[in-house]
Amino acid sequence: MTAQGTLYILSAPSGAGKTSLLKALYKKDKAIRISVSHTTRPMRPGEEDGVDYYFIDQESFLVKVKRGDFLEHAEVFGNYYGTDETSVRSQLEAGEDIVLEIDWQGAEQVRRRFPDAVSIFILPPSPGVLYERLSNRGQDSHEVIQGRMREAISEMSHYAEFDYLIFNDNFELALSELWSIVIAHRLKLSRQAAVHAETISLLLL
Amino acid sequence: MTAQGTLYILSAPSGAGKTSLLKALYKKDKAIRISVSHTTRPMRPGEEDGVDYYFIDQESFLVKVKRGDFLEHAEVFGNYYGTDETSVRSQLEAGEDIVLEIDWQGAEQVRRRFPDAVSIFILPPSPGVLYERLSNRGQDSHEVIQGRMREAISEMSHYAEFDYLIFNDNFELALSELWSIVIAHRLKLSRQAAVHAETISLLLL
Repeated sequence: MTAQGTLYILSAPSGAGKTSLLKALYKKDKAIRISVSHTTRPMRPGEEDGVDYYFIDQESFLVKVKRGDFLEHAEVFGNYYGTDETSVRSQLEAGEDIVLEIDWQGAEQVRRRFPDAVSIFILPPSPGVLYERLSNRGQDSHEVIQGRMREAISEMSHYAEFDYLIFNDNFELALSELWSIVIAHRLKLSRQAAVHAETISLLLL
Repeated sequence: MTAQGTLYILSAPSGAGKTSLLKALYKKDKAIRISVSHTTRPMRPGEEDGVDYYFIDQESFLVKVKRGDFLEHAEVFGNYYGTDETSVRSQLEAGEDIVLEIDWQGAEQVRRRFPDAVSIFILPPSPGVLYERLSNRGQDSHEVIQGRMREAISEMSHYAEFDYLIFNDNFELALSELWSIVIAHRLKLSRQAAVHAETISLLLL
């Protein structure tokens, strides 16, 4: 009997360290699957189709939207991004834990179709640290950084819609916290009873 | 603003390693409080009143039962054991995480008064390992061990009433799993929003 995997939603403002945390989590725990999104934005140097994103043209993207293929999709700076629902469902049914790295609006869309999704919001430890992280090592003007701060605050204002909050002050600590959430969900009764059905029936003989 | 602590119920058959796991957890995480029960059984060498148990006589115990002082209580081999509800409530309100080491019947009583309690059941990895652990290093007869096995099976038959299952095969792994559950619950929105209320309000300014 295969236990259903867990769908995780990971959201954060820019500067919270979400992408680095997710990469480090995947290094520690190879059983984690990071969902690969579709996008219409051009491929950047070093990126790989099917690894970083599925790169498709706008017309194909809009066909997929019309067909309802996407679990969630969004337009960011004129480019489209979306998560294919079929591939997520089949991975979950195969017992895999999948992480979606999306914003609060995507999170809202996903919760509607997957009410059991577990959502985690990463926060920076203070406004000062956030400003520092958004300053691009002092390359950018105060106005540009202020704009990023406003965007971050707007994203952060949705923190209360999530199941878990992690403050990313110490990276290693935040990483172990993120991993603890994943491990704890694997220990839930329904999951364990399915994974260890045989052991349990032997123990109760 | 003080966040409410979490009440954990830890149950297991004899031979699952529950007490050793809990002691090791407390060594790792001094913020965990292990509830001290009241008992009418005589103090054993090395035990300390107020540390291992509150040792009281049967008359005082039964007065406490009558007054409804106990969150749960049970009679085991002619001795009484009980957990004082007032002290548990005041520790939780002070934001402390408390672990109650009780059997499935105690667990049932506690869930009625604390529906938010998080319950964890520890299982041995196989009947063979359980038999081995219950054999008292070969000191006891097969009949005595069989009796213990039957008791263990009767306790284990309640595994499905618990929120989490941990299989204690590798002690260190089981310990880190147990700790992950505690850490994950500290990261829940309601708890984090209370603990970090000030940081959150600064971030959203």
